[in-house]
Amino acid sequence: MHPEESRVSFCATQLARIRPLWERMLAHPFLRDTRDGTIPDERFAVWMRQDYLFVEAAIPFIAALIAKAPREHWEPLAGVITALEKELKLFQERAEAVGVSLRGAPPSFTNHAYIQFLMATAHRGSYAEGYTVLYTAEKAYHDSWKVVQAGIDRSSKWYPFVENWAGESFAQYVAYLEQQLDLLAAQAGPAERASMAEYFELTTKYEIAFWEMAATGEEWPG
Amino acid sequence: MHPEESRVSFCATQLARIRPLWERMLAHPFLRDTRDGTIPDERFAVWMRQDYLFVEAAIPFIAALIAKAPREHWEPLAGVITALEKELKLFQERAEAVGVSLRGAPPSFTNHAYIQFLMATAHRGSYAEGYTVLYTAEKAYHDSWKVVQAGIDRSSKWYPFVENWAGESFAQYVAYLEQQLDLLAAQAGPAERASMAEYFELTTKYEIAFWEMAATGEEWPG
Amino acid sequence: MHPEESRVSFCATQLARIRPLWERMLAHPFLRDTRDGTIPDERFAVWMRQDYLFVEAAIPFIAALIAKAPREHWEPLAGVITALEKELKLFQERAEAVGVSLRGAPPSFTNHAYIQFLMATAHRGSYAEGYTVLYTAEKAYHDSWKVVQAGIDRSSKWYPFVENWAGESFAQYVAYLEQQLDLLAAQAGPAERASMAEYFELTTKYEIAFWEMAATGEEWPG
Amino acid sequence: MHPEESRVSFCATQLARIRPLWERMLAHPFLRDTRDGTIPDERFAVWMRQDYLFVEAAIPFIAALIAKAPREHWEPLAGVITALEKELKLFQERAEAVGVSLRGAPPSFTNHAYIQFLMATAHRGSYAEGYTVLYTAEKAYHDSWKVVQAGIDRSSKWYPFVENWAGESFAQYVAYLEQQLDLLAAQAGPAERASMAEYFELTTKYEIAFWEMAATGEEWPG
Repeated sequence: MHPEESRVSFCATQLARIRPLWERMLAHPFLRDTRDGTIPDERFAVWMRQDYLFVEAAIPFIAALIAKAPREHWEPLAGVITALEKELKLFQERAEAVGVSLRGAPPSFTNHAYIQFLMATAHRGSYAEGYTVLYTAEKAYHDSWKVVQAGIDRSSKWYPFVENWAGESFAQYVAYLEQQLDLLAAQAGPAERASMAEYFELTTKYEIAFWEMAATGEEWPG
Repeated sequence: MHPEESRVSFCATQLARIRPLWERMLAHPFLRDTRDGTIPDERFAVWMRQDYLFVEAAIPFIAALIAKAPREHWEPLAGVITALEKELKLFQERAEAVGVSLRGAPPSFTNHAYIQFLMATAHRGSYAEGYTVLYTAEKAYHDSWKVVQAGIDRSSKWYPFVENWAGESFAQYVAYLEQQLDLLAAQAGPAERASMAEYFELTTKYEIAFWEMAATGEEWPG
Repeated sequence: MHPEESRVSFCATQLARIRPLWERMLAHPFLRDTRDGTIPDERFAVWMRQDYLFVEAAIPFIAALIAKAPREHWEPLAGVITALEKELKLFQERAEAVGVSLRGAPPSFTNHAYIQFLMATAHRGSYAEGYTVLYTAEKAYHDSWKVVQAGIDRSSKWYPFVENWAGESFAQYVAYLEQQLDLLAAQAGPAERASMAEYFELTTKYEIAFWEMAATGEEWPG
Repeated sequence: MHPEESRVSFCATQLARIRPLWERMLAHPFLRDTRDGTIPDERFAVWMRQDYLFVEAAIPFIAALIAKAPREHWEPLAGVITALEKELKLFQERAEAVGVSLRGAPPSFTNHAYIQFLMATAHRGSYAEGYTVLYTAEKAYHDSWKVVQAGIDRSSKWYPFVENWAGESFAQYVAYLEQQLDLLAAQAGPAERASMAEYFELTTKYEIAFWEMAATGEEWPG
């Protein structure tokens, strides 16, 4: 590897490269309406039910990553599983507080597809490819909820979600993932690094699809 | 297992159970328009490009199944890989004959999602679950192209696809898969059999989504 | 499944079936000499170094199991990872107390082989097959250290290992695994149950090979 | 990658690095005695039965590699499966010709361990790591049977094995694998290349263990 390659952050490079896509995600009506307090409860409940299923599915995804991870990533990734279990409890607590049933729906098409993407990548891809998907998804959630945080009323019943993903603790976690992904990219050969860049973009496209699904209450196609 | 359970074909049971879904697939406008010769060339080309990518992706899917398969399935599944390589050549030959470039597009959202579903199932699911996806996808193609066969002009430039999937040789292959899947289901415990039924339905839903994608020329959501 | 099948414990059946093998394991000179306080320190250190590597490798094994586990097993298995991290600290503490370096050796042949067996099973086998290996290995350690416990001086420098694996908390953990494996076996079809029985026996044979390796300080063959 | 790194063959570098280990393999008594015609039939039959099981197990190993392979490796690797099926027939034909039953034994400890190593690597390792194991095992067999070829009587009943692995066609196949592995290594980052070097050495050690097992008729330890 050329010395100069390792000095440039892979994550920063990728975020710059796909900037228009990232901006499209952050400008999504679902985020804007949640921020402005104009999102209908039933629309938000669709997202809650689907994201609850997604967070659940993220646990075996992280486990599959641990199975391939270098020694020093085992404890941090086991900590991610613990954090996901806490997130599930946040969903349950919010659902109960506002009278929504989380068990009312199977995964939507986009949600099912995104979960397959996680699983296929973790099992078939290299560790660095799987880690790219993890980072990009977490970074997307952090930045997305930062958008919501910028305008939402602090007394909103959805504020605990803002605190969870836009807060300082999650920010530090995302910064840690970024640093580690930069290291993995610096160690990767050019072919793997190119593939990681593709996973970065793909994950962003799945994130956008997820907001779109939440906003439109999509059915399975056809 | 109770003797009576093994006498009932798993495949026949599942096809009966999801009959309305299966009928919806067979009634899809893409099949009707291809049968009636009213499908615009550019619309058919969308399908060709996407299905070419899908057939390509099916090769590592089959390979992942072989990696888990019982001894007696190795040779038949290696034969499936050979058949898929031949299918790729059929696409190339048709594409050249009608002046379509197969390399003109990345996978569409639905195609990417369906491929992830194959890979995730083959790697994470049991062998019988993966085999369920294989059978359902092949049976869906056989029945779908039978619909097309029922009315298409034999001089149609798309007729070689009809011959490939609606023909006698493919019919025998699907019958073999059905017999083997029935055996796997008869050997499975109740929990695995229930999961196989779910994979049967999910695969059908992805098949419908695929025709829908071909018919509408969908973009990635959002 | 016939009702009577589910009433018989799979674990009890297997332990009875391979009784002579199990007895051979429990009678191994390494256990006897550790119990009697006649084991040379350097011999015990060989085992410590190798078992430390094995416990480390068990973490990605458990993670690969979580990746395939049913929802209700995620938390208990994540707890196993936490317990393994604690075990690693017990090794480090003991190693320091007695002046042994844990980093003095690569995995021996038998240790490397056993670790490959764990990984191959977790990734390629069914969840129930992987869980069989987990139970059998933990049950083997519990019973083996019970043998040591029956005679070892409580002031022995190796007593903390006895407390760890022969103690009440580990006994309860093994009883939980046994109950869960019995449930998995009751849900399995006959072919999978037969395969689980084979994994039960194979794991016991690897356990015996591990004590033998510790006792003889084996080199790689040839 | 520095330009000079890609000019040096990874395979040549590794073969030079582990030369004493490789020489130890080539000097193994099993090869010498087979070359000199002094190997007892029953000893050779032990090897035949075990290697037959190993070749069988190599088929799902290759399949697991295809599942991760780049597009251009699919057909060559599918060809390896076909070649392995032919090798199985060679074993059956020889066994029948000399009155040996191939089904007389379960895998020995070393054979079982080696197979686990293949499976664990194919499923958990990167593609380049798995390919390293494939190349090293095939190169080891080619070089080993070249040793036998140098002295064996052409009328020996074991000569068909010599023809299979020491012959021109296998030599070309090994040369192709070498070229491809050199390319994979050139594209790998430094961490993956270091890991590939370790797999190279480990595979050689398993190969030596295999000849040792064949020569001694080992039992499972303990």
